[in-house]
Amino acid sequence: MNDARWMAVALGLAERGKGRTAPNPNVGCVLVRDGRIVGRGWTQPGGRPHAEAMALAEAGEAARGATAYVTLEPCAHVSPRGPACSDLLVAAGVARVVAALRDPDPRTDGTGFARLEEAGIAVESGLMAAEARRSMAGFLTRLAKRRPHVTLKLATSLDGRIALSTGESKWITGPQARAHAHLERARHDGILVGRGTFLADVPKLDVRLPGLADRAPRRILLSATGPTPPDWERIADIADIRHLAGIDTLMVEGGAKAATAFLRADMVDRLLLYRAPILLGGGKPAVEAFGLAALSEAHDRWRLLDSRLLGSDRFEVYERN
Amino acid sequence: MNDARWMAVALGLAERGKGRTAPNPNVGCVLVRDGRIVGRGWTQPGGRPHAEAMALAEAGEAARGATAYVTLEPCAHVSPRGPACSDLLVAAGVARVVAALRDPDPRTDGTGFARLEEAGIAVESGLMAAEARRSMAGFLTRLAKRRPHVTLKLATSLDGRIALSTGESKWITGPQARAHAHLERARHDGILVGRGTFLADVPKLDVRLPGLADRAPRRILLSATGPTPPDWERIADIADIRHLAGIDTLMVEGGAKAATAFLRADMVDRLLLYRAPILLGGGKPAVEAFGLAALSEAHDRWRLLDSRLLGSDRFEVYERN
Repeated sequence: MNDARWMAVALGLAERGKGRTAPNPNVGCVLVRDGRIVGRGWTQPGGRPHAEAMALAEAGEAARGATAYVTLEPCAHVSPRGPACSDLLVAAGVARVVAALRDPDPRTDGTGFARLEEAGIAVESGLMAAEARRSMAGFLTRLAKRRPHVTLKLATSLDGRIALSTGESKWITGPQARAHAHLERARHDGILVGRGTFLADVPKLDVRLPGLADRAPRRILLSATGPTPPDWERIADIADIRHLAGIDTLMVEGGAKAATAFLRADMVDRLLLYRAPILLGGGKPAVEAFGLAALSEAHDRWRLLDSRLLGSDRFEVYERN
Repeated sequence: MNDARWMAVALGLAERGKGRTAPNPNVGCVLVRDGRIVGRGWTQPGGRPHAEAMALAEAGEAARGATAYVTLEPCAHVSPRGPACSDLLVAAGVARVVAALRDPDPRTDGTGFARLEEAGIAVESGLMAAEARRSMAGFLTRLAKRRPHVTLKLATSLDGRIALSTGESKWITGPQARAHAHLERARHDGILVGRGTFLADVPKLDVRLPGLADRAPRRILLSATGPTPPDWERIADIADIRHLAGIDTLMVEGGAKAATAFLRADMVDRLLLYRAPILLGGGKPAVEAFGLAALSEAHDRWRLLDSRLLGSDRFEVYERN
């Protein structure tokens, strides 16, 4: 029971690094002794210090005999940028390590756990693994599929439209939903829009939230032709997202053509839906045909993870099955 | 506090008459003495007996000194089909009457309350009035607007489609949502479909639920031309729903053309949305353009009343503001 509670704290800390640690995973760590937190850490912008190093630095001598809750197996490889976290945990005298996930990075992949066990530290793995996989989806997708984890964001009316036939799209959703969408931007390494959306809106794709203005993700334009605007990167084809080094989480923000291209390639891992309580009738649909031949192909693809109201708009998160 | 609890019971009983009492309102009544229910009634199929008469018959002598909770002002007019409920309540020796709504029917409209008060019965009105208005929306809309209360039912994908471009539409939603839609049919006096849906599906519009097979509503075909199929009624124009005697609640079930016509005329009072967790991309949109010139016209029309999951589909009820 308590283990899950502390791991939830570590997962919460891990969120702080989201969108700032690629190509490193955004890890969270909490050190607990006698039922109290003695150190907290999360992967710092750019990837260093690691979560464990930060938590141990905060705990100091209090780390001795503590339990470390980490969302990912502590690393076992020494790098020019810092020592291996498993060595740091041994040196600090930690008594027990509870990890959510084994690190699939071939440089670690079990050797972190082995080093801890050799030093007499009790090791457990797998607690809240599903949550941790979601937390580090960018890192894990890059390792497993050699491409970023892709989130498709759609802001629609009840009848699935993203603009009136006049092109008017500001605004479908209300201020709370739009603020939430800005927060989601801050959690991604990159944001992509298609050429039509770029030309129609020239979107800034910045993060208009107090204290998060510096968290604007990299801006990616999907366009086979045309110049690359200043402060933007351009890719000609969706397959090129593989080559976006340092972008492990990508949010596709618009428009229907880009959304459709990613769905057709089955490259959408997660859906964010913001749905306003309005009917539009005509206008631009959120998604165009992406190659379904039968309804049976449409079912059982998406699993609901979250659903709530943001003002009068419904926000839902789906994950690809 | 207790008054609201008993009125909620009366409103629950009122639901039993839905779809079977037009042109009479579906009223609920509960008689309470010393904190216990001594009689329960609801408007019977065809409109008689009234809820109060049924509850008083059940209570017998126990009605003396009781409080009657009724969702509508007891009627004051004697009809060949039965005595006035306000007279029955007086004769039974009821001590107090709590009503949710005054009856706007000009034959009553306060005279029921007056008759009770003249007999020394304490009368209160207005408790849970909003709920009662929803419960008797058919009766009240017929009186106020001289047409049935119209519910538009839509079963869509997340992107607002009701069929693939191949026409395949069975099924978008799952079995729990479809069973719920059958229950909603039983609560309506009539169901309407347009010509396209009729020709494509020849829908039965029956109620395929155990014990409710006899609750099939009247079937209305919206079609300017063509023969009227057996067991169907046909209207040429949506304005003709005014002339459907005995239909005070109408559910529009399909397809996009019919939905669009009712929305264009601003004749949709309530929306039932069943939304499956699937994306379809191409295919038939649920609603076509119905004349919005700007997004501002789309906002603040619909108020969310209910939202829940039916299996993996989201069910939502909206009411026209």
